[in-house]
Amino acid sequence: MSEEKPKRMAIIAGKGGLDEAYPPLILGSTASALDFEVAIFFTFYGLDIVNKKKLKKLKVAPLANPAMPGIGPIQIPNFIGGLPGMTFMATKMMKSWMNNAGVATIPDLLEACILGDVQLIACQMTMDVMGIKREDLIDELEVGGAATFLEFAKDADITMYM
Amino acid sequence: MSEEKPKRMAIIAGKGGLDEAYPPLILGSTASALDFEVAIFFTFYGLDIVNKKKLKKLKVAPLANPAMPGIGPIQIPNFIGGLPGMTFMATKMMKSWMNNAGVATIPDLLEACILGDVQLIACQMTMDVMGIKREDLIDELEVGGAATFLEFAKDADITMYM
Amino acid sequence: MSEEKPKRMAIIAGKGGLDEAYPPLILGSTASALDFEVAIFFTFYGLDIVNKKKLKKLKVAPLANPAMPGIGPIQIPNFIGGLPGMTFMATKMMKSWMNNAGVATIPDLLEACILGDVQLIACQMTMDVMGIKREDLIDELEVGGAATFLEFAKDADITMYM
Repeated sequence: MSEEKPKRMAIIAGKGGLDEAYPPLILGSTASALDFEVAIFFTFYGLDIVNKKKLKKLKVAPLANPAMPGIGPIQIPNFIGGLPGMTFMATKMMKSWMNNAGVATIPDLLEACILGDVQLIACQMTMDVMGIKREDLIDELEVGGAATFLEFAKDADITMYM
Repeated sequence: MSEEKPKRMAIIAGKGGLDEAYPPLILGSTASALDFEVAIFFTFYGLDIVNKKKLKKLKVAPLANPAMPGIGPIQIPNFIGGLPGMTFMATKMMKSWMNNAGVATIPDLLEACILGDVQLIACQMTMDVMGIKREDLIDELEVGGAATFLEFAKDADITMYM
Repeated sequence: MSEEKPKRMAIIAGKGGLDEAYPPLILGSTASALDFEVAIFFTFYGLDIVNKKKLKKLKVAPLANPAMPGIGPIQIPNFIGGLPGMTFMATKMMKSWMNNAGVATIPDLLEACILGDVQLIACQMTMDVMGIKREDLIDELEVGGAATFLEFAKDADITMYM
């Protein structure tokens, strides 16, 4: 625990909704800007965040999230959230909020992680399970398993499943 | 790692359903009772937990949670969970279970955290994104960003995104 | 932090969907194979994972998960996900993917955790709240509270709420 050793953060990103992609990327890029060593392990649905075809099209489900903000004072109830078109609307709303508040987009946050030397690891097992090929994923990552993640995480100061 | 230094726990509360508000508040208040230093960072939907108008009205979504207990042996299927009124019913059921089992309410748990000197931090970015003002939130918190959280968390013994 | 001391991982498993049961069990069993000391605390819906009647019947909700893979190129939209039968179909699909990729089943992963001396702890409060009896749960676990978990977790190298 000498002061010279950089702090280390190990994140598992296991979810692939648009709103679920922000937390690991914001925390990861911020930590790298603060000179932390950071690794993000993308697994299960989280693999979408580094999938070339999907990362720009992540969506927000308006369903099953009673805390989701509505349009002004109007909350989207679950029975409306299930109607066709509402996933599109909720996704659009969130992108517009983030943009209005000056928050970077998912591709921009991913770029910030890459520039900040955040180690990006794609879960081999998930790729096998879902039939995802190496070329489907962005170039700037390595492929590994739970053991790869644990090897990094065991000496981390902050560990998070997000 | 001397024995004199108190243990430290850093929690990110990122979700705002009623059932999702219990884990960070129960863990946070228990840890503070055990003399841990605790900070909870409320971000994204989790900000509802410290929103004066919303904290007593947090809801449970009956949807998309196949593990949610039903009424006695009856499970709520997704196609019923989407009907009007079911969020209300699921919320009511959970409050009744918690009450019957002697579990404190969300306002009570929050009070326990405050009395136990748990540091409550509201995410500035989320406030900007969702148009939430300082006065919308309970008095006993500070406003900060991901860097504020990381500064506390980097020396924590337990870190959790809940 | 001598090299002789084994690394330690403390996991809270708080969700009970089939897809949500894999991450804690895969990570826990892998870590134990790497000679970590591991404890998993099953709480809220996560208690289903160690419930004798439920652990073989965990389900995947097709709803509110816009990242869920579809059948080939076809994504299940939310308004279809809410129809009767879709939870069954989504559950079946996931089991078939996992099986085709050679991933162990939930009962097998649980067995691997037990054989690997992973400490399994059932949350007393959840049992009280949901009316779950000791005999409803698998034999190989102990019953405890948040304080039991914190006692183990405070000296852990990796802590995760999954």
